[in-house]
Amino acid sequence: MTGIESKNYSSMTEGKRLVHQVVVPPKDSFAIETGRVVRETFFHDVGPLDWFKGVSRRQQCLLALKYAFPIVDWLSTYKLNTFLYDLLAGVTTASVAIPQDLGYASLLGIPAVYGLYTSVVPPLVYAVFGTSRNTSIGIVAGVTLLLGEMLKREISPTADAANYLRLAFTATFFAGVFQAGLGILRLGFITEFLSHASIVGFMAGAAFIISLQQLRGLFNIAPAHFSRHTDLVSVVRSVLDHTDEWNWRTIVMGIAFFAFLSMTKFLAKKKPRLFWVAAIAPLVSVIISTALVFLTRADKHGVMIVGYVKKGMNPSSAHQIFFSGPFMYSAVKIGLVTGLVALTEGLAIGRTFATLCDYRMDGNKEMMSFGFMNIFGSLFSCFVSTGMFSRSALSYNAGGLTPMSNIVMAIIVAITLSVLTPLIYYTPSCILSAVVISAVLTIIDLKALWLIWKVDTLDFLTSLGAFFGTLFVSIEIGLLTAVCISFVKILFNITRPHTAILGKIPGTTVYRNMAQYLKATSVPGILAIRIDSAVYFSNSAYIHDKILVYLEKEKQRLGKIDGPKVCYLVIDLTPVTNIDTNGVIAFERIEKAMKKHGIQLAFANPGTSVLRKLDNSDFLARLGSEWVFMTVGEAIQVCSILMNHQDA
Amino acid sequence: MTGIESKNYSSMTEGKRLVHQVVVPPKDSFAIETGRVVRETFFHDVGPLDWFKGVSRRQQCLLALKYAFPIVDWLSTYKLNTFLYDLLAGVTTASVAIPQDLGYASLLGIPAVYGLYTSVVPPLVYAVFGTSRNTSIGIVAGVTLLLGEMLKREISPTADAANYLRLAFTATFFAGVFQAGLGILRLGFITEFLSHASIVGFMAGAAFIISLQQLRGLFNIAPAHFSRHTDLVSVVRSVLDHTDEWNWRTIVMGIAFFAFLSMTKFLAKKKPRLFWVAAIAPLVSVIISTALVFLTRADKHGVMIVGYVKKGMNPSSAHQIFFSGPFMYSAVKIGLVTGLVALTEGLAIGRTFATLCDYRMDGNKEMMSFGFMNIFGSLFSCFVSTGMFSRSALSYNAGGLTPMSNIVMAIIVAITLSVLTPLIYYTPSCILSAVVISAVLTIIDLKALWLIWKVDTLDFLTSLGAFFGTLFVSIEIGLLTAVCISFVKILFNITRPHTAILGKIPGTTVYRNMAQYLKATSVPGILAIRIDSAVYFSNSAYIHDKILVYLEKEKQRLGKIDGPKVCYLVIDLTPVTNIDTNGVIAFERIEKAMKKHGIQLAFANPGTSVLRKLDNSDFLARLGSEWVFMTVGEAIQVCSILMNHQDA
Repeated sequence: MTGIESKNYSSMTEGKRLVHQVVVPPKDSFAIETGRVVRETFFHDVGPLDWFKGVSRRQQCLLALKYAFPIVDWLSTYKLNTFLYDLLAGVTTASVAIPQDLGYASLLGIPAVYGLYTSVVPPLVYAVFGTSRNTSIGIVAGVTLLLGEMLKREISPTADAANYLRLAFTATFFAGVFQAGLGILRLGFITEFLSHASIVGFMAGAAFIISLQQLRGLFNIAPAHFSRHTDLVSVVRSVLDHTDEWNWRTIVMGIAFFAFLSMTKFLAKKKPRLFWVAAIAPLVSVIISTALVFLTRADKHGVMIVGYVKKGMNPSSAHQIFFSGPFMYSAVKIGLVTGLVALTEGLAIGRTFATLCDYRMDGNKEMMSFGFMNIFGSLFSCFVSTGMFSRSALSYNAGGLTPMSNIVMAIIVAITLSVLTPLIYYTPSCILSAVVISAVLTIIDLKALWLIWKVDTLDFLTSLGAFFGTLFVSIEIGLLTAVCISFVKILFNITRPHTAILGKIPGTTVYRNMAQYLKATSVPGILAIRIDSAVYFSNSAYIHDKILVYLEKEKQRLGKIDGPKVCYLVIDLTPVTNIDTNGVIAFERIEKAMKKHGIQLAFANPGTSVLRKLDNSDFLARLGSEWVFMTVGEAIQVCSILMNHQDA
Repeated sequence: MTGIESKNYSSMTEGKRLVHQVVVPPKDSFAIETGRVVRETFFHDVGPLDWFKGVSRRQQCLLALKYAFPIVDWLSTYKLNTFLYDLLAGVTTASVAIPQDLGYASLLGIPAVYGLYTSVVPPLVYAVFGTSRNTSIGIVAGVTLLLGEMLKREISPTADAANYLRLAFTATFFAGVFQAGLGILRLGFITEFLSHASIVGFMAGAAFIISLQQLRGLFNIAPAHFSRHTDLVSVVRSVLDHTDEWNWRTIVMGIAFFAFLSMTKFLAKKKPRLFWVAAIAPLVSVIISTALVFLTRADKHGVMIVGYVKKGMNPSSAHQIFFSGPFMYSAVKIGLVTGLVALTEGLAIGRTFATLCDYRMDGNKEMMSFGFMNIFGSLFSCFVSTGMFSRSALSYNAGGLTPMSNIVMAIIVAITLSVLTPLIYYTPSCILSAVVISAVLTIIDLKALWLIWKVDTLDFLTSLGAFFGTLFVSIEIGLLTAVCISFVKILFNITRPHTAILGKIPGTTVYRNMAQYLKATSVPGILAIRIDSAVYFSNSAYIHDKILVYLEKEKQRLGKIDGPKVCYLVIDLTPVTNIDTNGVIAFERIEKAMKKHGIQLAFANPGTSVLRKLDNSDFLARLGSEWVFMTVGEAIQVCSILMNHQDA
């Protein structure tokens, strides 16, 4: 007991108690304070652990097993009925996955078969550890493009294909290590620094770039002749510089199937019950176009085809990972960046569907699943994979209920790899390009952009920064621009916080911002100001100046109307959630300045930590703790009474 | 008119009006919004300009002249009485300035006379433009050390003295350009990013380092044999490695005068009226020790002396400034860093005395004065100068009332340069070291450190970071560490904001944090939560999760005591000063989740911009604008009535 609690804060009005006590809360020990910070930073989403108490040892083991391996949880209550839905969802996603995987592999500049490998191992691993029921796993456009761009900066995929592949596996391995590490250390909040606005802008930019990359396939240009850069100018120049390679058969076929795919999408949008038409359209396109090429032998007329795809399941790549040398360091860097972007995207998708279907997804466990699936994946010839929005949405529409849909999809792709690869031989490259373009254009979310524009102009700027940065420079610069704009925005809000003059709402004791509530009226002789931000070093000087300017204006106003002089300054601290040493000093300087002007300072509704800090600095004792009130209303009531008392 | 204002927000209770309307404020146009941001960012400290209206053209010109050249303002009403005070203040500061300037020059590794030059031109320029009455101008320890450290990294002061000097002048020139530019562009808020805690830590570290540097003079070690690094380890090694150069006469004299200086300081602290004893002590020490050396010819026994000091006023150095070449780029960088640090220190000192003497100091004009004095200074052989705390305090104690004290000081130093330099010939170096150590040790502000420790543990960490970074690595690293810790602290507060469950204060309609007000009670069936921060991308997921966890806990609590189930969730938005797209999405997800649980969401007291954004995003229309209340009390009142109505 420091005697703080026994201070009498309402001694001014004798006899009748007018105001409520505001006592300084006892200081928490350093250990308790640190514990709180650690809990809120790392374990805020852990609910009460009561379900673990009061059950037998055997049940506790089962619960722990279910916690570690969510598959145990849902498989123990799995029903045939559920499986039918998951089967449909799995078949639907596989039919999109196969052409997409073949197409996306070209973004990396590697044989198409590696795209298929990545739809086998990671989804299986995810099914064991994942906590999202709808997330469908695969290589996604944006991450793959980013990975390819960063890899190509280290090694050329055409000149040194073997080391390029090794570097890709190593980067995937470290991406997984990094993701799992973040989950284990519960540092998931790092992914929150990518705002919605940045992601929308980045996705739109990436969709554009990916579509541009696919122009290569559509126009039948050889990979070696195509730009290694991803920006708009280089790509368009690549296409226009090689008109000699253009092939009318390829172009016509590509555009025709692109039109077909777009039509089915339009149909699915108009009549949601026909979603399956759009879902199977890519597979249908691949089958028809492959048959066409086979029958007309268009490949003899220059139409590029996928060609020989190695039969068989994922080969092991464990021995190919660099565990030393300069390439390892490059791979760590690439893994860090792509792992973080993949995580952000995957988690956002998981959160979306968890909200739609009303279940809790554990962010940190989800990160660990992503990490494990990429670590395992890198040992079996897979690349960085994550949750895919388009496929997850298909799975959700098809009624998928558990991660079983991922297992079904993986099995179908595995069967394709083992048996059906010869059928892919005649698949024209242009059809894969058409499938990819048609898929990625849907991730340009104009509706979201429109909403952002309506809600927050600065957020819209963030989106534009990410979009144009991605489109004209590179994906990393795009993301970096967006993150920087986001933080500058926050810093601006902290450096120049909002302040308001408060007035009384007629007929109440409630005081509100006079600029917002036009009916609110001020009390002559008392100036009430609300500070709408924590008071930190970055804004303490501003707040100090601002309050003095308000005071000066009020004096001038009162001077004009021949009103009373200002006797009291009440500062509403409700929104002041924290304060630092600079803040305390600013308040001390305000108090001194007020004293010189013969004005009494009073505070209303300070929070726990603010009150404690003002007390620790002895400022409260100097001010007189009777000048701290629970509400602005009570503060002004007391000031009015004292003012009338002085007049009388 | 969008019809927003005509919505009836209190239609639930027929007949009797229970609650107050919360109308969505009309949207400001983009231009008005931008104008507000610009005004608050750049012109927040400009009060009403009424003094400029309604006067004659001639008076307007005079006012403008006074605004541009503050010297016109104070000189037009200058009185002899005022001059006497300023004369005393000027003489006192000059008596400290001369020995300090000679000593600080050694921090830069240049002839002592340059230190004196810097006390002539900059104070004169400052007197014309400055708005602080007490700031005394000169080269200060911290900035000079930083300047020296950065210069020596480019050019050696012993090997290439001519270019070293040129680089120093160029850096000073660009520091001035940078400072004046910040003032003209009104970007002064950049200096606010150095928090009080960082400055206290940095100053203490710099004081230690400067004292260490002075060990060279105290132990009589030749400059060429002394470490060029400033960190603790290198300096102590330098001293111990050259015991052969130690000179007992130097050491005894240095320590004796250091003891004398310390004693006078102690005396001045005990009896503030004797401050002049401490003020003239440095000059007395210099005079006595110089006489001693001259009489005993101690310089023949190895005692280092200042030696020949060039007679005459500041030579021009305009032709020595690099306006091209690689040195220019280095100088721009050095000027930027030292200019910013000098500005921060000078402004802080100005603000301190402005508060003490209750007058307004114009931050941006002050920056321009600093800029002009450094630009002019660099043309007349001066180095980066700024306001000095120790001398300003002396000037304040001596009763200085206007910048005239700077003019007096400059004239005295100029006379010394013109006439008295031969007298300095026999001044021993050790006495200058003793004066400098004695001066800088006072800037170690243990009281401030103790206050910081009491108020804010994280701020204390910032101080320690700045202190140890400066002491063991370098001044830049020290400052950088401090700035980083400060920002991480702010980001933590934004990423994991405080939230509180609200309860009713008995006998009122006021709702407050139940953890702070232990008497507050919750209303069964209604959960009221306050979010203590703006809702941004960096915390929207946390706030979403946190609210769901609160709800889960409340359900469990009610389940145990067999209470009613939760029907209403009231979110108090009073401290939510802003919101971005992520925040809107988080609220939408909370609303959806609540709907699934059959819980009605309500908001209390949203601010102007939050309300507008919720409305723009159509969220308000979906929620139903009748669920937005002016106070938590009214929200809960309505919810209670509806709950009872359902039960009945």
